[in-house]
Amino acid sequence: MNQFVSGVWRYCFGSAEDASPVRFFGGGAARLEDAGSVSLPFGYKDITVRFTRRGSVVELPMKNDENFYGFGLQFFSLNHAGRRRFMKVNSDPSADTGESHAPIPFYVSTAGYGVLVDTFRYVTFYLGTNGAKGSSKVFAKPMKAHREFSEQSLYALKQAHNERRVLIEIPNCEGADLYFFEGPSMLDVVCRYNLFSGGGCIPPLWALGNWYRLYGGADQNFTLQLAETFRRQGIPFDVIGLEPGWQSHSYSCTYQWNAFLFPEPDDLLHQLRRQNYHVNLWEHVFIHPHAELYAKLENRSGDYEVWGGLVPDLADKKTRELFGGYHRDHFVDNGISGFKIDECDNSDFNPSSWSFPELSSFPSGLDGEQMHSALGLLYQKTIEQAFRDRGIRTMGQVRSSWALAAKSPFVLYSDLYDHRQFIRALVNSGFSGLLWSPEVRSCEDAEDLIRRLQSVVFSSQSLLNCWRIPNPPWFQTDLAKNLAGEKMNGSDAVTAIVKKFLELRMKLIPYFYAAFWRYHLEGRPPVRALALDYENDGLTHTIDDQYMFGDSLLVAPVFRGQTSREVFLPAGEWYDFWTHERLSGGKTIVCKTDLEILPVFIKSGVIFPLAEPVLCVKEDTVFDLTVFCFGGGEKRFTLYEDDGLSLAHEEGKYNTLVLTQDGNGSVSAVRTGTEPPRYVVREWNGIDCGVLS
Amino acid sequence: MNQFVSGVWRYCFGSAEDASPVRFFGGGAARLEDAGSVSLPFGYKDITVRFTRRGSVVELPMKNDENFYGFGLQFFSLNHAGRRRFMKVNSDPSADTGESHAPIPFYVSTAGYGVLVDTFRYVTFYLGTNGAKGSSKVFAKPMKAHREFSEQSLYALKQAHNERRVLIEIPNCEGADLYFFEGPSMLDVVCRYNLFSGGGCIPPLWALGNWYRLYGGADQNFTLQLAETFRRQGIPFDVIGLEPGWQSHSYSCTYQWNAFLFPEPDDLLHQLRRQNYHVNLWEHVFIHPHAELYAKLENRSGDYEVWGGLVPDLADKKTRELFGGYHRDHFVDNGISGFKIDECDNSDFNPSSWSFPELSSFPSGLDGEQMHSALGLLYQKTIEQAFRDRGIRTMGQVRSSWALAAKSPFVLYSDLYDHRQFIRALVNSGFSGLLWSPEVRSCEDAEDLIRRLQSVVFSSQSLLNCWRIPNPPWFQTDLAKNLAGEKMNGSDAVTAIVKKFLELRMKLIPYFYAAFWRYHLEGRPPVRALALDYENDGLTHTIDDQYMFGDSLLVAPVFRGQTSREVFLPAGEWYDFWTHERLSGGKTIVCKTDLEILPVFIKSGVIFPLAEPVLCVKEDTVFDLTVFCFGGGEKRFTLYEDDGLSLAHEEGKYNTLVLTQDGNGSVSAVRTGTEPPRYVVREWNGIDCGVLS
Repeated sequence: MNQFVSGVWRYCFGSAEDASPVRFFGGGAARLEDAGSVSLPFGYKDITVRFTRRGSVVELPMKNDENFYGFGLQFFSLNHAGRRRFMKVNSDPSADTGESHAPIPFYVSTAGYGVLVDTFRYVTFYLGTNGAKGSSKVFAKPMKAHREFSEQSLYALKQAHNERRVLIEIPNCEGADLYFFEGPSMLDVVCRYNLFSGGGCIPPLWALGNWYRLYGGADQNFTLQLAETFRRQGIPFDVIGLEPGWQSHSYSCTYQWNAFLFPEPDDLLHQLRRQNYHVNLWEHVFIHPHAELYAKLENRSGDYEVWGGLVPDLADKKTRELFGGYHRDHFVDNGISGFKIDECDNSDFNPSSWSFPELSSFPSGLDGEQMHSALGLLYQKTIEQAFRDRGIRTMGQVRSSWALAAKSPFVLYSDLYDHRQFIRALVNSGFSGLLWSPEVRSCEDAEDLIRRLQSVVFSSQSLLNCWRIPNPPWFQTDLAKNLAGEKMNGSDAVTAIVKKFLELRMKLIPYFYAAFWRYHLEGRPPVRALALDYENDGLTHTIDDQYMFGDSLLVAPVFRGQTSREVFLPAGEWYDFWTHERLSGGKTIVCKTDLEILPVFIKSGVIFPLAEPVLCVKEDTVFDLTVFCFGGGEKRFTLYEDDGLSLAHEEGKYNTLVLTQDGNGSVSAVRTGTEPPRYVVREWNGIDCGVLS
Repeated sequence: MNQFVSGVWRYCFGSAEDASPVRFFGGGAARLEDAGSVSLPFGYKDITVRFTRRGSVVELPMKNDENFYGFGLQFFSLNHAGRRRFMKVNSDPSADTGESHAPIPFYVSTAGYGVLVDTFRYVTFYLGTNGAKGSSKVFAKPMKAHREFSEQSLYALKQAHNERRVLIEIPNCEGADLYFFEGPSMLDVVCRYNLFSGGGCIPPLWALGNWYRLYGGADQNFTLQLAETFRRQGIPFDVIGLEPGWQSHSYSCTYQWNAFLFPEPDDLLHQLRRQNYHVNLWEHVFIHPHAELYAKLENRSGDYEVWGGLVPDLADKKTRELFGGYHRDHFVDNGISGFKIDECDNSDFNPSSWSFPELSSFPSGLDGEQMHSALGLLYQKTIEQAFRDRGIRTMGQVRSSWALAAKSPFVLYSDLYDHRQFIRALVNSGFSGLLWSPEVRSCEDAEDLIRRLQSVVFSSQSLLNCWRIPNPPWFQTDLAKNLAGEKMNGSDAVTAIVKKFLELRMKLIPYFYAAFWRYHLEGRPPVRALALDYENDGLTHTIDDQYMFGDSLLVAPVFRGQTSREVFLPAGEWYDFWTHERLSGGKTIVCKTDLEILPVFIKSGVIFPLAEPVLCVKEDTVFDLTVFCFGGGEKRFTLYEDDGLSLAHEEGKYNTLVLTQDGNGSVSAVRTGTEPPRYVVREWNGIDCGVLS
């Protein structure tokens, strides 16, 4: 790590703590005071700091019309200007406070810069909320008493008029470093931040297929039977996830197989691998007294228990090696492909010991506050390393993260479950180097199932979490009836739609895999707010229910109950994903939303590949591509080919397959590299683009 | 103040901060280490403290079966054992974290003691949540893998088994004082705490009547017309409350009349007083630049604005004098009887500057965190003093409070609005020296209106807050239709029921006024959880939807949609409030809940006075009493008579009127004191009590 990303500047004040995201996970940067020409709207001397009994306070300038994005996985707001944001890991953020599974002390400004506060403390940001004393005085108009009553005017958003400032309070410290990321565009800022984080992760290719998490009461036979059923029915799944029941004890965890439910795990894994499934195991980090790991880590844990188990000090390298090494030896080496790492997100309001107190201390020197912030990402790094030790990639799920997470191959999920909030979180995730899955869990009815599935297919992880139901949700969405084995009316029609969208996910794999390569190489998030791609169009700045999926697709999810929805198309030409109908942008259109249709639009001027769907991604899968050219002009799209499994790509072992259309309309596919081909272009199609049309 | 209450002990550690509840509002106590025989289940040496970068940590012993009550105005839980409680003032507590308008760092234990942490810091309590590392090891049974899946077992509440401790983290300080309150009963603890606070408040007599807060769009004529209508219709109200519209500007506040809507306030007040109304004015503490107070307090305010207004430093005596003196001179002297003091409860998740940052600093030395905790009670003290300066009592409403509030004549209210939560808050309020009104605001329908009214009549403040509707809710509960002036079907019948319950409130005044006198003299809360009166019956320990109202009444509110409800009657005999039917306690009964009936029960063995209802409480009102004796045995009830207005009672200027029934069944009413009588006993009635029956 420690690469030096241009346009990143460090501002140091006071005496920073030893434990911080950059010190743990990050890159390097020049000090701001030494900077020559810096493209920030304010300079070193415009920043003020002071120290209080509570910690450190930083004040930054702010323009009156400046808006802010980021702060991690936010469910309630998109633009954070005029708000207070409290960066505390909280598994159940029930109000718009800034708390979240993955709050990130990083924001992006429409004025073309980003700010990272390099700390594991519960930072609070006041983003132009409160003027300094007296600053409103000159703005107070001559008093005219109101003649009429209006609730709106009573509570109208009254931001500070004058001398707007960003106030940052970093508690319990006597200094910290701030990092400033130059633009000029917000997307430039985000890319810089992600590169500073080490570049985005590249998932194994199979991880871009569909995921199915099994019923919590599953045993070995149940698991095999359902896996075989999917293959027999031609429903594409790449990953089978086992929930807590696989372990001999939870909560807390033993990390050992349940001998009653899973008497022969090696055989199970063998049979699943034979059908080309990848297996993901649920766990959390709290170690049960009967776990083999307990004795090894008792002296390397925090001073308080959670669920009667140890809290291993993952800020300590040796502890990570022991915890990760156990996973490597017992699971990676036995063919497990990844983990779902749960409950690391400080369940704040649950009764009893669902997490450790903030007053905890750890042998590494971290306290409970710092550990709550750091734990999710440390846990990810620990598990990832177990796979890296064997030279292979993983992708998992995680319930918490923190700053500089882009390189980590884990996708966030949540026990919250409001579909609308989930989509807002998806839009927000791309500002802060996070991946997010609006996983399909329980559903109100078939419509809800389909609407949720449609959006999860267009997310970083196409995941159904069926831990509460023995039968798939397309068989029955009602919990009690599912448990009773009662098929719902219309199940066959629902199954057909579900299958169609799971197959669509498989068609998108080459396209979306390329998006992850750009995430890795350029820092460009694979899923993004429209405000990042169309920053100059101010109308995009408030859109939190549409997003860009990869380079070329604009997705507008539909929620249960909607029979039509408005979609804003930025200026330019667009094509309906399903009909290829051409549409003019720069305006809001109304889309009808038949249950089988999710509004998706393709940008004009792009090359867009779609694969023949496969049932799963094997080591030797070669995708047959149909390539579409949309609209006029020269265009280019780069696909990446590698083994999809190992770390060899880090040594340059990959091909690029560059698809181009030149000014005359001629197309070509040019491969560079010597790895086995992963893609074959079977067909070119052109829509409004000259010769191919 | 500074009286020395027996059975209260102080534990000092480190270097306590200058600003604290006891230093600001409290009594005195002996140091625990100097104590002789102390009735606490643990001693001085069982308490440990340590200091961290985050602040101070105290650990106290805890028994495995110990339960905890208190922590102020809690909406979500009754028993807090096994939970984490975060004492942060928050106007919108949306989850069970401990945050609230009035979180109080004071709890009562079933082991017969209470603990107050004397701080304005955001204390966190971990009440037996997490065992120390290794403490669960010896309890972990030999591993037996589970054979069946159960969600219940997965997440079962797993409290620490061994070495349960109470962990208290006090941030941002290097020491604090703890106060321990002896029992032996929980009620003894609560009484001691309230006496330590100076004893409970005694409201002016009129304040126990009914309150009506007017439509926000009201002008002078509207106000007068509605007030006259109530009198003409014989609907009893004592207090008219004006909402923000009375001021020339809000938010922030000018504390000046709106010249358009209220051109002649003196005339208005004169006419309302002539009809024996008391007038309460809404305000908040944030001072608009055009307020007369602005210039005086600019140098006595915090360094950040709220709503463009000053945040006066009410921790400073001179500031309190200026702010309170303005209210005295402009409002108390003009006949205003009280204030509703809003928005002092740190609206945490609202956008923009709805409150001041925690990083604020105040001239007195308090920071924003401390001020958030202290502000509500300081504000109450400031306003109360404006009345005390003129030798009169007030009662108001307030949105926030803190430790040692019992003496303060303000009732809490909330913008939350779940009726069930409101009743839980009512049950909880009595543990921590708080008064709470489940005010009637908007209502789903007539049933909701009546159910809410029935419980508010049996609370510390019988308050309807009709700020959004020009017509009374019994005319129309639907907001839009109310604004349109459209009368609802059945309005006349609803009006009759509403009137009946408002009259019932008037009948209860002498009884309930006596409860406040016990609050003042003995610390006994006027509204209490059953667990306080019937602690020996463990079944009462979880009841959060019934409560004691005064000495003798058990109230069981009904919620919209209920057609019957279960009521637990503690051991002994009870009498139905409405029918005087005798019921045996020690069991749960099922009550039918006709809309006109709220289940209320009278203890056997009490004397219970009911007054002839009056339309309002005048200075010279004398209540005609019908006195009931319920059940056998000697019994006694003390009524208190005074002017009901002034502070003369503090100089001993009051009578007692002691109602007794002796062993032979003979009754007597004996007055002691020379004040004009307030009560006349017109009739004695006996139920199951010998001669009178």
